[in-house]
Amino acid sequence: MEPATFVLFGATGDLARRKIYPALYNLFVDGKLPQPFSAFGLGRREWTDESFQANVEQSIRQFSRRAANDEASLKSFLRAFRYHVLDIGRKEDYASLLERVQVREDELHMAPNRMFYLSVGPEYFEPIAANIQESGLGSSNGWKRLVIEKPFGHDLQSARELNRKLSQSFDEDEVFRIDHYLGKAMVQKLESLQQSNPVFQALWTNRYIANVQISAIETVGVEERAGYYDHVGAIKDMFQNHMLQMLMMAAIHLPHDSSSDKVRFKKKKVIEALSPLQKHEIGTNVIRGQYKEGNLKGKPVAGYLSEPGIPSTSMNDTFIAARLHIENNYWRGVPFYIRTGKRTNEKSTRIVIEFKDPLKPSSQADDEQIAPNLLVIDIGPRESITLRINEKDPVSGKFKAVSIPLYESQGDVPEAYENLIFDALHGDATFFAHWDEVELSWQWVQPVLDAFADNQVPLHRYAAGSYGPSASDALLAQDGYHWWFDEKIEQAETSGNPSESKGEQYAYNANH
Amino acid sequence: MEPATFVLFGATGDLARRKIYPALYNLFVDGKLPQPFSAFGLGRREWTDESFQANVEQSIRQFSRRAANDEASLKSFLRAFRYHVLDIGRKEDYASLLERVQVREDELHMAPNRMFYLSVGPEYFEPIAANIQESGLGSSNGWKRLVIEKPFGHDLQSARELNRKLSQSFDEDEVFRIDHYLGKAMVQKLESLQQSNPVFQALWTNRYIANVQISAIETVGVEERAGYYDHVGAIKDMFQNHMLQMLMMAAIHLPHDSSSDKVRFKKKKVIEALSPLQKHEIGTNVIRGQYKEGNLKGKPVAGYLSEPGIPSTSMNDTFIAARLHIENNYWRGVPFYIRTGKRTNEKSTRIVIEFKDPLKPSSQADDEQIAPNLLVIDIGPRESITLRINEKDPVSGKFKAVSIPLYESQGDVPEAYENLIFDALHGDATFFAHWDEVELSWQWVQPVLDAFADNQVPLHRYAAGSYGPSASDALLAQDGYHWWFDEKIEQAETSGNPSESKGEQYAYNANH
Repeated sequence: MEPATFVLFGATGDLARRKIYPALYNLFVDGKLPQPFSAFGLGRREWTDESFQANVEQSIRQFSRRAANDEASLKSFLRAFRYHVLDIGRKEDYASLLERVQVREDELHMAPNRMFYLSVGPEYFEPIAANIQESGLGSSNGWKRLVIEKPFGHDLQSARELNRKLSQSFDEDEVFRIDHYLGKAMVQKLESLQQSNPVFQALWTNRYIANVQISAIETVGVEERAGYYDHVGAIKDMFQNHMLQMLMMAAIHLPHDSSSDKVRFKKKKVIEALSPLQKHEIGTNVIRGQYKEGNLKGKPVAGYLSEPGIPSTSMNDTFIAARLHIENNYWRGVPFYIRTGKRTNEKSTRIVIEFKDPLKPSSQADDEQIAPNLLVIDIGPRESITLRINEKDPVSGKFKAVSIPLYESQGDVPEAYENLIFDALHGDATFFAHWDEVELSWQWVQPVLDAFADNQVPLHRYAAGSYGPSASDALLAQDGYHWWFDEKIEQAETSGNPSESKGEQYAYNANH
Repeated sequence: MEPATFVLFGATGDLARRKIYPALYNLFVDGKLPQPFSAFGLGRREWTDESFQANVEQSIRQFSRRAANDEASLKSFLRAFRYHVLDIGRKEDYASLLERVQVREDELHMAPNRMFYLSVGPEYFEPIAANIQESGLGSSNGWKRLVIEKPFGHDLQSARELNRKLSQSFDEDEVFRIDHYLGKAMVQKLESLQQSNPVFQALWTNRYIANVQISAIETVGVEERAGYYDHVGAIKDMFQNHMLQMLMMAAIHLPHDSSSDKVRFKKKKVIEALSPLQKHEIGTNVIRGQYKEGNLKGKPVAGYLSEPGIPSTSMNDTFIAARLHIENNYWRGVPFYIRTGKRTNEKSTRIVIEFKDPLKPSSQADDEQIAPNLLVIDIGPRESITLRINEKDPVSGKFKAVSIPLYESQGDVPEAYENLIFDALHGDATFFAHWDEVELSWQWVQPVLDAFADNQVPLHRYAAGSYGPSASDALLAQDGYHWWFDEKIEQAETSGNPSESKGEQYAYNANH
């Protein structure tokens, strides 16, 4: 790996402390950082190199998956870090930063390869990028890369505007847009599972797949993000980026020598093929929800409108379910269901691929029914990939569903930020969002945002601790399906009869 | 289950002792025998009911997978058994047997349902069947069933003749031809795996399958069967029956409500579609082998021609490998390789389904190669079904093969004879060989027998302790494949590069 300087904007912030320093340290321990490696933390606070290093050290002790028990190694890691006081708008600060970066590069005999990591609010992306360019920090004698966090715009228009500005300072292949869901181990496994196995490639089409369910639901409410969240809602916070990125990853077809360009080309093809929703279709394909008071694991919790910082008239969405169609030869006719929401009954990020049963006799009585085959990708908090198949009991002769683990996390695996920072340092953009993907995602979402703004889509209130509004279940029931969640999968395996449990799910949701 | 009388010809024989009594006892313990149940053992020896029961008891203690630790239960089981001295050719013996069977039926208030199990040499099948019919043992007030062991004829002509004769006394649906490979748990699992899982049904075609390998190899030589074996060889002892039956089971496509008739109809379609070998094709598609002296697990062993009872000029086959093609839309272009032989390096009955890799770039360098996906059905002595897929190592980024157990035997599962006797008592013929299958098998094999007799196929001598003649490996190598055996699978999993190990296999076989 080429030597590189890591320049972090927002070095005193929460993301840096919780994710970035621990990720860098874990990479260091695994021998996956460039040699030599130089790091500059930037912020407005008047920290010194020493106080910065102490902060980095504390963050590692608190958040790293590696116990920092090798003190010598930790000290050696910390020595790479320098702090520089920087006001994002002050050009002089960039000039003095450049000087210090160059001094370190000379000391370490490093080429001027510089990665600029923007862990700051989106309003700072453009001025930072412009100042990097103007100050000469982006040297022409080495490479420069810009790593930015979400959100990339707040609608189609603003995203295009932001991209136009950034592109004046950085080329598209120098911009690494982080969507940390793409860094998650199971999202990457899903991609390699399909990529390296003809048996899964074979199944990856509308010929064999009935529907695809992509869920990211969580038990927490808005917490301390109220002010921000009430302006974005689930649709901008989760749907436009993470959920559509997972959809692309689930829907692409890759040969096993795929380059980063090939992956992004295929992802673009998928999102281009997403059927746009016409105005009159939005209400029947997109479900908007907001949690009201309810019970979560036996504890009463407040409704969204009673959360501190949320206006009591808010129409913000804390839950989105949607049915999407990909109009290409692979996926025509296969609904992709997406669901994301807060204050639900379980915390789970999961992709379920439900297979068709083309040989099932239509006349079959309910009690002879066998459960559908499923491929279940648990992305978090559980990390596993499971194939659910049916087995015949040798004694009773009845079929029952069994879950075959294809992969189970052994626990100590690299976190999303480790994977992504490593890839960016290598210049591997496979698991970053290309501008085309971002633009096309906004393009699909924009009419939905407009419909929400015009209040053309009903806002369903759902009880905290439920699985969202019953309209979300009805969305699938229209097509003859239901959401697969933990309980549902277990029930099918014990009873051998998935339809039996249907009533329970609806009963559960009936109290909205 | 209807009450039934079990009438066993050959009650003093080895098969009865090793397999049939233990199977009946295991069924009894599991509550799977008819109630009431009456059993008659027949033989020429002058045994009494008591000495017979003592023999049955001893066989159970020696061979049953259930410890006979419940003495009361064992005694109660044994009380069902009666012995009757019978000379197969003496009609009076059948008359007196009928009397005793009827007395028991009256005592137990049973309908005259009678299952006749012929555990005797094939030369006795016809006279026994005729005498059952003439004597009135096959009552018209209940059902009658004839269970017969292999061999069913010794060539096409004799099999047809035997069937013609049996059919004068028993209808086809009353004849249960045992092929105990069909009773093996993993053969039955294979069928239900495909039957109940759309994901496997989808893969079950020439679109995704490269080749199918069906092996039954063993370390033992002819042992005490020399006189018999030298007249039949591997082709009649294993190939015509067990191997072709496994081929049919692997190649059929079944909806999950398949009746016995449907299964047998589909099996017939498969064997009907087997491309017959023209005279000039036999030498290039069928490999005939005979073991010479060699080393087995470090011990020197004698060659076939030095075995006691084998003439030193014998041209008998102790090994057969063959390439077969099924000419239908499912299997056109997929070679089915069959291999069976004695004195090989390992004991293993196994079906391997090797999947195609349609997305593999033809230009791919060897070290980037990924291993093919395999579905491995271990029928014995290991009992398991394994899916071999590829995984990407998160650190090195390389693909490596991993074996995912879909099913592993928990040890205490019903043996083949338990499954088959239970099915026959139920009248379920799913896992028995229909006459059509037997006839069509002989029809495919007959030209090969003729070519062997005319010595038109070279007899390859292979070292005891090898995997058979190198011509058997060359048969697959012509098509770009190799036999998958344990070592081969493990190598691919550790090296990630299956082609590396190719040299070793050939080196191993080079010392023939």
